[in-house]
Amino acid sequence: MANSPMVFNQLLAIGVGLIGGSACLGAKRVGLVKRVLGHSRRLETSHEALELGVIDEVIADPSDPKLREVDAVLLSIPVQQYRSVLTKFLPVLSPNCVIFDAGSTKADVQLLVDELDASYPGLAARFVGAHPIAGGEKHGPSACVNGLFAGKACVITPSDQSKPTIVAKVEKFWGCLGANLRHMNPIEHDEMFGAVSHLPHLLAFAYVNSVLKHEKGREFMFEGGAGFRDFTRIAASSAEMWADIFQANDSALLRMLDGFELALGELRVAIEKGDRKALDVLIGQASAFRAEWQSSGE
Amino acid sequence: MANSPMVFNQLLAIGVGLIGGSACLGAKRVGLVKRVLGHSRRLETSHEALELGVIDEVIADPSDPKLREVDAVLLSIPVQQYRSVLTKFLPVLSPNCVIFDAGSTKADVQLLVDELDASYPGLAARFVGAHPIAGGEKHGPSACVNGLFAGKACVITPSDQSKPTIVAKVEKFWGCLGANLRHMNPIEHDEMFGAVSHLPHLLAFAYVNSVLKHEKGREFMFEGGAGFRDFTRIAASSAEMWADIFQANDSALLRMLDGFELALGELRVAIEKGDRKALDVLIGQASAFRAEWQSSGE
Repeated sequence: MANSPMVFNQLLAIGVGLIGGSACLGAKRVGLVKRVLGHSRRLETSHEALELGVIDEVIADPSDPKLREVDAVLLSIPVQQYRSVLTKFLPVLSPNCVIFDAGSTKADVQLLVDELDASYPGLAARFVGAHPIAGGEKHGPSACVNGLFAGKACVITPSDQSKPTIVAKVEKFWGCLGANLRHMNPIEHDEMFGAVSHLPHLLAFAYVNSVLKHEKGREFMFEGGAGFRDFTRIAASSAEMWADIFQANDSALLRMLDGFELALGELRVAIEKGDRKALDVLIGQASAFRAEWQSSGE
Repeated sequence: MANSPMVFNQLLAIGVGLIGGSACLGAKRVGLVKRVLGHSRRLETSHEALELGVIDEVIADPSDPKLREVDAVLLSIPVQQYRSVLTKFLPVLSPNCVIFDAGSTKADVQLLVDELDASYPGLAARFVGAHPIAGGEKHGPSACVNGLFAGKACVITPSDQSKPTIVAKVEKFWGCLGANLRHMNPIEHDEMFGAVSHLPHLLAFAYVNSVLKHEKGREFMFEGGAGFRDFTRIAASSAEMWADIFQANDSALLRMLDGFELALGELRVAIEKGDRKALDVLIGQASAFRAEWQSSGE
């Protein structure tokens, strides 16, 4: 049926937490997939996902012969785990199986895929990276919701080697979950997220740590108001996930950090010197940009 | 009448923007004052406040003889303007007139009052500083609202010289506007706000500036999501006001900035070295504290 929403017959979800699990739930609801198998690092997690109806069957063992029937794999796990997971599963999976992912960094993943392509010829052609922007502080299968991606951005990062028909399938998958698709190359993606997501997280963590070092820091922070609350909200995010992201995108992040330290140094010097003119210019440009951003309609 | 809410007969509001104007509106509504005179740097502003019913009469000139009848002055202007304003108005005001303020920094204001006490004996006894925590991105008389201070914190910072009966009046004024009163000494106040308000603003301004320097920075930021929005919200604040605050609280702010740079340096080294254990510890402590803060009930 030409208009069928079905994209994949049997989908294996590796990682069934907030992102992976919500994608499975949505895909089943919309009819993008016939059947969803699920695997996770801890067996209890997949069983929880099974009980919640997020997946249809648990795959405990990467050598399970059912995996031969799978026609697509969605990786929604920390990118640091991709190598060990892929080298375990690829030998069993069909050589036509589509591999797509929802990781927060893309250049390192593409490098890994290109490297593994030597051992699994054609892998780079059937891999299409993506980054759906729908994370949150909650995690685990119990946090999954149908509709998580509706109206959210999803950056698709196909490589030059990705097969156009497979790119189209992955686009259909995320698009039918309601995401607004954007295309970028993996390096551009990592630069952008280094700038607008990873660096703010780094600064928020460093800020909270610096105040904790002050002898009255905890007491002070419990007096913090709305500005403090909003500025530090991202500091409550999962430590494990963010250590992963900082390691996966270290070079772009460190470049942005260099720029931040320069900009902070300019403000420091202006304060130290009591240079009002410089302060007006430096604060004024930040304030004007952020006000423009706001009025452009969040 | 013992139970009368009246605290002052004639109040002069110097500064009739968001904070000063909302205090006037509330004080009139609750009956804390009989009559409110208003003065502002620009005459149009006081006329706007008059038209909006925020004040009852405009005082254009510091030598206006009506000022002799005023029994309290509320300063709600940038602290940098206190010296010039006070030296203009004090010669005309009654030597019993209560002076209180709503400035964002307190140690510098107390120093100024102590210094002016030599020329205006008793000034330090009739001065009581306060910092109502109710700022926002909006400003001017049109932003004023009755009830602005309801449920908000207000830090009262009397000095050793403040007369207890006058402290009680100022407490009654802010308390009857619905604010939750806290007491601190001026230095402790500035340390706390340096830590939980001034430093986050400084970092947010520096962050936006650093991304603006990137060739695709503007474009990147317009892709920013909820984390970016919240982290940078305070960067939209008034540049003039924040240049004032950074100058007024420079020493406490620079001390906190030293601590921040150390904490950021630790994270940088952990990322550069790929030291996962250090990253887990550093991010983990920030994340755990912020989650605890959140669950303590914002």
